[in-house]
Amino acid sequence: MNASGPCVILNEPQLAENIGAVARVMANFGLSDLRLVRPRDGWPQDRAWASASGADWPLDGARVFETLRGATADLRLVMATTARPREAMLEVVTPREAASRVAEAHAQAWPTGLLFGGERAGLETADIALCHAIVTIPVDPRFHSLNLAQAVAITAYEWRLTRAAGPPPRFTAGPPPADQATVHGFYDQLEAELEAAGFFHPPEKRASMVRNLRVAFGRAGLSEQEVRTLRGVVTALAKGRGRVLAKLAAARLKNPPD
Amino acid sequence: MNASGPCVILNEPQLAENIGAVARVMANFGLSDLRLVRPRDGWPQDRAWASASGADWPLDGARVFETLRGATADLRLVMATTARPREAMLEVVTPREAASRVAEAHAQAWPTGLLFGGERAGLETADIALCHAIVTIPVDPRFHSLNLAQAVAITAYEWRLTRAAGPPPRFTAGPPPADQATVHGFYDQLEAELEAAGFFHPPEKRASMVRNLRVAFGRAGLSEQEVRTLRGVVTALAKGRGRVLAKLAAARLKNPPD
Repeated sequence: MNASGPCVILNEPQLAENIGAVARVMANFGLSDLRLVRPRDGWPQDRAWASASGADWPLDGARVFETLRGATADLRLVMATTARPREAMLEVVTPREAASRVAEAHAQAWPTGLLFGGERAGLETADIALCHAIVTIPVDPRFHSLNLAQAVAITAYEWRLTRAAGPPPRFTAGPPPADQATVHGFYDQLEAELEAAGFFHPPEKRASMVRNLRVAFGRAGLSEQEVRTLRGVVTALAKGRGRVLAKLAAARLKNPPD
Repeated sequence: MNASGPCVILNEPQLAENIGAVARVMANFGLSDLRLVRPRDGWPQDRAWASASGADWPLDGARVFETLRGATADLRLVMATTARPREAMLEVVTPREAASRVAEAHAQAWPTGLLFGGERAGLETADIALCHAIVTIPVDPRFHSLNLAQAVAITAYEWRLTRAAGPPPRFTAGPPPADQATVHGFYDQLEAELEAAGFFHPPEKRASMVRNLRVAFGRAGLSEQEVRTLRGVVTALAKGRGRVLAKLAAARLKNPPD
């Protein structure tokens, strides 16, 4: 269970709803080994499952421990997440640096854990002393009260990013851009219609007006389908409306309004 | 309020508790401008304040909008966070890349927004078409149901990291993108003219045709000057060519070719 990621250790958690919310974010980021040290209201608690939105497996497999020492006995690297390192007794690292160290440890098959304190008290100095580093999430000092599940989410999110080989996954949008001949054909059509409509005045500004239009369309990286659509737009605007107006004009000539 | 960070836009949020939880993580990461589009249970809701754990100011200052267009009118960059980009109609970026782009925009004093869908339905394709990129949080595909406040937390956390790192080194060239109200005004004009020209047929395809056009123009990140030029283009094509054809038709009626 623990092989593919750090376990999450909650020290004296209070609200079962928060334990459920932690299970949900663990599932979101691919973690499953949940350990509870002296949960205030005992264990199991139905309200934890109710608030996990279906992420039952970290709850089903959760183990309860009487002491933090017991909960971390098999681990080789334990990072303590706390907003308020009262004493700089251990190195303080960012969630990103913590994730990187956890990933390095896992590359060597070392079991690791992320430790979080209870909602009210956080972690005691004695708890932190059992860990290897302190992780501090860079919250605004004017409002540093971070929800327990949020703290787990950010730490787990950073860990998940280390799983991706190389840079995090990046998707390019949809279809590839059309070849330039296709795009230029659209420019030809657009500019010819604008010429016919008397758009380019004064004539000496034609070159810069054409250039500005091409730059705007060029930045969009139009696909072939989009070029076809825009050609249809130009045709519709130039011809369709023209037909409507021509009909109107013809009707007026037949039946002059005066 | 908006000067120092992106606003957070919740589109059709359902639970007041989630709105409160969002306010709390906004405060954690130094954000304060909260915008609500059609909150299901109305606004204000006491339960939001109750679940914000003292982070009252984003709730006190929250503004309610009838439409997503209204909520984004003053913004120059809008990133849509969604777990399921059904169609890759826009570029999909990581929260980290999104934060970097938002930070770049703020370095140039462009107002920006992070858009999140409602708890049940997420974001519709038409909502996404009003944005500039899609942000996808790299969750485990086996359990991708991320709590709304968690999604805001991770995006806001990444934004805050860019603050700590100092101003981003990159600046984009050229004029800033127009605000969204300006861009939407162009869409209104274009779509009205296309309607008049009979472009939208069959009528049931109108919505997707409109969406595809908006996405193509949205990707270009049009400047104010470019929007003015394109409005001139539409007017010229619709009216100018119409006048030419009307004159021709009138001339033919006076002097029939046969």
